[in-house]
Amino acid sequence: MKTIAWNDAPVRDALAALKRKQPFVYGLTNYIAASLSANVLLAVGAAPAIGAALDWPTCFAAGADALWINGAALVSDGAHALRAAACSAHEAGTPWVLDPVAVGAGSAAYDETIRSLLTYKPAVIRGNASELISLAGGAAPGKGVETQARSIDALPYIQRLAQQTCAVVAVSGETDYVTDGSEVFAIGGGDARLARVTGAGCSLGALIAALLPVSPAAIQAASAAHAIYAVAAERAAGVRGNGSFGVAFLDALSELDPHVA
Amino acid sequence: MKTIAWNDAPVRDALAALKRKQPFVYGLTNYIAASLSANVLLAVGAAPAIGAALDWPTCFAAGADALWINGAALVSDGAHALRAAACSAHEAGTPWVLDPVAVGAGSAAYDETIRSLLTYKPAVIRGNASELISLAGGAAPGKGVETQARSIDALPYIQRLAQQTCAVVAVSGETDYVTDGSEVFAIGGGDARLARVTGAGCSLGALIAALLPVSPAAIQAASAAHAIYAVAAERAAGVRGNGSFGVAFLDALSELDPHVA
Amino acid sequence: MKTIAWNDAPVRDALAALKRKQPFVYGLTNYIAASLSANVLLAVGAAPAIGAALDWPTCFAAGADALWINGAALVSDGAHALRAAACSAHEAGTPWVLDPVAVGAGSAAYDETIRSLLTYKPAVIRGNASELISLAGGAAPGKGVETQARSIDALPYIQRLAQQTCAVVAVSGETDYVTDGSEVFAIGGGDARLARVTGAGCSLGALIAALLPVSPAAIQAASAAHAIYAVAAERAAGVRGNGSFGVAFLDALSELDPHVA
Repeated sequence: MKTIAWNDAPVRDALAALKRKQPFVYGLTNYIAASLSANVLLAVGAAPAIGAALDWPTCFAAGADALWINGAALVSDGAHALRAAACSAHEAGTPWVLDPVAVGAGSAAYDETIRSLLTYKPAVIRGNASELISLAGGAAPGKGVETQARSIDALPYIQRLAQQTCAVVAVSGETDYVTDGSEVFAIGGGDARLARVTGAGCSLGALIAALLPVSPAAIQAASAAHAIYAVAAERAAGVRGNGSFGVAFLDALSELDPHVA
Repeated sequence: MKTIAWNDAPVRDALAALKRKQPFVYGLTNYIAASLSANVLLAVGAAPAIGAALDWPTCFAAGADALWINGAALVSDGAHALRAAACSAHEAGTPWVLDPVAVGAGSAAYDETIRSLLTYKPAVIRGNASELISLAGGAAPGKGVETQARSIDALPYIQRLAQQTCAVVAVSGETDYVTDGSEVFAIGGGDARLARVTGAGCSLGALIAALLPVSPAAIQAASAAHAIYAVAAERAAGVRGNGSFGVAFLDALSELDPHVA
Repeated sequence: MKTIAWNDAPVRDALAALKRKQPFVYGLTNYIAASLSANVLLAVGAAPAIGAALDWPTCFAAGADALWINGAALVSDGAHALRAAACSAHEAGTPWVLDPVAVGAGSAAYDETIRSLLTYKPAVIRGNASELISLAGGAAPGKGVETQARSIDALPYIQRLAQQTCAVVAVSGETDYVTDGSEVFAIGGGDARLARVTGAGCSLGALIAALLPVSPAAIQAASAAHAIYAVAAERAAGVRGNGSFGVAFLDALSELDPHVA
């Protein structure tokens, strides 16, 4: 297992490449996280568009540089919209990220819809420990959209899931782990308060997507995104209160300079 | 009529109990207020999930510790989703809060759908004066989602509504009033700017829901929620500008210490 | 071409009139921008309501003082809801604003729906250069919802579009231009970071709508809204970081005093 952090040149190189390319990143996500996800992407220099307006799922998933699908997009989109976007991305070769929010939390029809998206070969699957253990076939009940398992407990499951799906799998927690089924990257640091800002996890899926078109492989994109999140959260950690922390986190993201470790 | 405030031990005890239990609170609400509602719940230590993704309304309303339904959820959910959640909560014994946003503002079909939810016995109904006067059968035209009546004028109406519905009814205004049809609690303080932060009223419905599973009765949960809101707004009042006030309000909520009056 | 700015009395008079009337402004918009749009309206003293809950599109579009329709509302509303609101406003004489988000970005069915709304005679059409060039029949591919053209390049197109539609047309960019097809107002200043706060452009459509019922003509409402945005962005420009800029922008809007240039 390797550790990876903002100090490592590949992470900063990935952010520099993102700022040069300004990729168009299309997302289907839930309305709770939509605004933060867009602001996270704007903060690092990407060009986001969000939502399933009429023919956007097919047109934008094909035309964008990357796509992310957050399962909780089903709060406003039909299952057909998520499938259309995933299918369109798969056929067009647009790399995409799946975030299986709340899978395994007790809603069978929802879970089945999320699992069906695996057909369209996401490049990266990201989530918390409960969700990924559940998606890998284990038992780890969550509390709605929150996990009750630790990321280290999910490690064998995400390795298995990566092998099963040929996707890179990334679990968030006290330490984050990213694996392609053989190699594992660990990302420490960050700040626990990030879990108290709604949509912060969902927005990480968007950031991973933005890094996919500028990274040599999906494991680099996913681990760089986690390292960028960790350093921004650490730089925001000095403020008191959840509201100020959310603002300071966006500030830190927007002020990250790829040329300064 | 009794007054109740943060200084009263039952209010702080309720918040302490919430922080211990970390209840799973499920909500159907509008996308304007969804992010703030989730952040309010996260700030006090609850675990929120929001939205009507496929079978979530039935599964999550039955499995959660409490539910809130904000009528303006109809901006993205069908009436069947709201009814399914209310019915599922009622049958499972999950206590729930109804916020009849904009009832009486001129849209008959919308009003009828909201009224139909009363069948499923909410534990608490909260709103502004116009909405609650209208729901109680009086005439008090609002301006879209804003009230044009005073909370004191709504007092006889909310007492009648509480008796009709067997719910606790709470009206927000310059002074907030909470009643079970006989007893009335008054909550003063707060800050008028809270009405200039979109979704702040809606999020209060979420906070009431979070307190229901840890309170001896619904009237305690509803009055504690109003007192918690009032003290957080007062502590935020020192900042200038609406944007900073919203941030400071979330900060104050997250920093409330149940052991310090 | 005239320049117009906060220092000009008609701009401050328009804001003063808005604060006196506190117009009820109804909007159909996307969930990414909904919260900011409502907070922008609340900051200047208007009373917003957002979303297509059941019969709101017909009832509220007829009953409100003004309406804005953001095309990306189609992420949660059916095309029939947008048409119902536009038609209801047109028949009731409610002035309304059309924001053709992402038109010309590659989704034909979406574009056709947006164009069909022109039937209902918006008072103002606002957007970025790519969108307005495309709506006027030119070719200016954007990057999803972002423009890749300059506002000055859009100038001949917005003049043509204004003549074709009898609407005032306003393009945002380094300099903003507002025209009724003959007269052109230019608004400079502002801050480029406004384009890195998601929904800021969408919210400008809401502010234009709020000024329509208190302005002598649509060109005054649209140019005043741009001038108000520019001065608020300039006053927010001292802060570092995208998160703080968004907060400071709302602060500045809420603290604008119509009696102080």
